[in-house]
Amino acid sequence: MTLIDELILETRDFARRREWLAFHTPKNLAMAIAGEAGELASELRWLTPEEASPEHLSEERRRDVSWEMADVFIFLLRLSDVLGVDLAAATREKMTFNEERFPVIRGNDASNDPR
Amino acid sequence: MTLIDELILETRDFARRREWLAFHTPKNLAMAIAGEAGELASELRWLTPEEASPEHLSEERRRDVSWEMADVFIFLLRLSDVLGVDLAAATREKMTFNEERFPVIRGNDASNDPR
Amino acid sequence: MTLIDELILETRDFARRREWLAFHTPKNLAMAIAGEAGELASELRWLTPEEASPEHLSEERRRDVSWEMADVFIFLLRLSDVLGVDLAAATREKMTFNEERFPVIRGNDASNDPR
Amino acid sequence: MTLIDELILETRDFARRREWLAFHTPKNLAMAIAGEAGELASELRWLTPEEASPEHLSEERRRDVSWEMADVFIFLLRLSDVLGVDLAAATREKMTFNEERFPVIRGNDASNDPR
Repeated sequence: MTLIDELILETRDFARRREWLAFHTPKNLAMAIAGEAGELASELRWLTPEEASPEHLSEERRRDVSWEMADVFIFLLRLSDVLGVDLAAATREKMTFNEERFPVIRGNDASNDPR
Repeated sequence: MTLIDELILETRDFARRREWLAFHTPKNLAMAIAGEAGELASELRWLTPEEASPEHLSEERRRDVSWEMADVFIFLLRLSDVLGVDLAAATREKMTFNEERFPVIRGNDASNDPR
Repeated sequence: MTLIDELILETRDFARRREWLAFHTPKNLAMAIAGEAGELASELRWLTPEEASPEHLSEERRRDVSWEMADVFIFLLRLSDVLGVDLAAATREKMTFNEERFPVIRGNDASNDPR
Repeated sequence: MTLIDELILETRDFARRREWLAFHTPKNLAMAIAGEAGELASELRWLTPEEASPEHLSEERRRDVSWEMADVFIFLLRLSDVLGVDLAAATREKMTFNEERFPVIRGNDASNDPR
């Protein structure tokens, strides 16, 4: 069993024991993911880029950020479970698609600009 | 190596080959996660709960949703990599924290209400 | 002076008196808008569509929702101010654009389906 | 009639003529606001703070940003209409609340730090 499958079972069990499975519809979970992504953004919004850099982020803030990341991931795992989506496979499919959409250009940095 | 570690290496390599690593600051990645979470919400916003249910979601929509989930996950993996966060460990820490915050109540459904 | 202009002055003054203007860069404000939009989504995520309907939403929840809406609007006003964007004019421009993108179809509801 | 009231009527009429009012439930509109806030964040995510500054933002990007702001505002107006929320009054209520929560400190900048 992969680590993602293990975490899906653990998060499902957490919700099941609280009788929360009925709340975990696809729409509600998408709202929860947006909510937690918003909280993650809020953690970093007023920091300068330097303050938010890996080198300067305080240990306490780094822990808070990691827990907001966990919240996003928990609801992403729940949505994977509810919709029967293989998250790792979908991620690799999307990267294969992106490989074609954003070809690697050598010797011409401007063409690689994601903006 | 865990599946999450494998995916971290693959997404890092994808960005590295395009010379995108410099764009992947914590603030920018948090904005990207919020952006992709918004696109995920947009996929489902106008569907009724029944239309968005696992049983009724069309195969095409389910694929589109899985790709938006992949986009959220890709930037979550990138942020884990940049900040040196162990996403699985953070997820289990957060669930342990939530175990205390939301104790399982037996025979009293109202107390388990997440709302 | 329009009501929107009045509110822009009031929110700017609020930030100025706290010496927060320097934090209000376009990127930071976009993160703040995403953060507050996430909190708004979180208010309603676990409610059923009926519970969240105008008829059934509790007075307390309606107040909480209106304050999250206010937070989104406050940062939208701040971003309008910082970028010199006329929010009402931009809104009418976007609706004019949308008029062409989504023409009104009579007698054929399916073509009006936003999904 | 205030400018906000005028815009509420215009956005309602836009939706009514397309028979979209039934889609505009509070939950769906909250998802739409999160979706458009995500698109706004996406416009600026890969720019440096300097590139995204009012002085350096290109005219084309500024227009794109203003249209994403308009999309957030349109759905905020729709939600105000559907829930019968007076957005300007709620904004002033929230600022009055924030006045107490974040008192203005003179001669002690650290205490005004929003982070």
